[in-house]
Amino acid sequence: MTTTAIPEDYRHLLEEPNYGVLATIRPDDTVQANPMWFELVGDTIRFTHTSTRGKYRNLQHNPSMSLAVIDPADPLTYIEVRGRLIEVLPDPESVYFQHLAERYGHPEFGVPADTAHRVVLVMSIEQSTQQ
Amino acid sequence: MTTTAIPEDYRHLLEEPNYGVLATIRPDDTVQANPMWFELVGDTIRFTHTSTRGKYRNLQHNPSMSLAVIDPADPLTYIEVRGRLIEVLPDPESVYFQHLAERYGHPEFGVPADTAHRVVLVMSIEQSTQQ
Repeated sequence: MTTTAIPEDYRHLLEEPNYGVLATIRPDDTVQANPMWFELVGDTIRFTHTSTRGKYRNLQHNPSMSLAVIDPADPLTYIEVRGRLIEVLPDPESVYFQHLAERYGHPEFGVPADTAHRVVLVMSIEQSTQQ
Repeated sequence: MTTTAIPEDYRHLLEEPNYGVLATIRPDDTVQANPMWFELVGDTIRFTHTSTRGKYRNLQHNPSMSLAVIDPADPLTYIEVRGRLIEVLPDPESVYFQHLAERYGHPEFGVPADTAHRVVLVMSIEQSTQQ
């Protein structure tokens, strides 16, 4: 089943601090999948990342993003949201990183060593598939 | 950290019946991420799938595959294995489907309605990244 909005029954999977897997496409047209913290903000999904790592370079080349979130309480249930990178916000003080770390139960992480390169990736939600 | 082999410390994530997220590339060069059952068999990873669905069509167009498996006991720990589709084996009696269903605790699934189109996807393991 595919719709362009997030079905109400599945919305909680994006609202709770579940781990997601973000898929991106590398410049050589191979695919990459990485676990990510995320947050649903309005009709976007936000991630903390850095401007020096692979996924960031992938997204400069091809902005397509897909996030799959499996229900930890029932792994036959999941949602996949597809969209693309629409904005990159600088986060040099790691304010957003720390906000997500707290959301995921790791307030002890503090400011990471790579804070100068921290960014917020903003993903549009264009399609969702769920089961 | 990236290596071409599976580090011993992370191998259990692929040996246990964990859910993985498989990333593939769609013919329009956007990316797709789907939860999947899988099995580590020798130096390959096998999935049950059908020849009529999106991922299969994606892989005919671009054979690149990436599987991310998060440790359910410690979600900061994960392994990503990257490779490509190297073989498709017919499974019209759903023998492999039922084998995986049993491995994942669902022997009650029996033979699925789409059994005529069932296939086994065989993925090579070319790189792994873990944390």
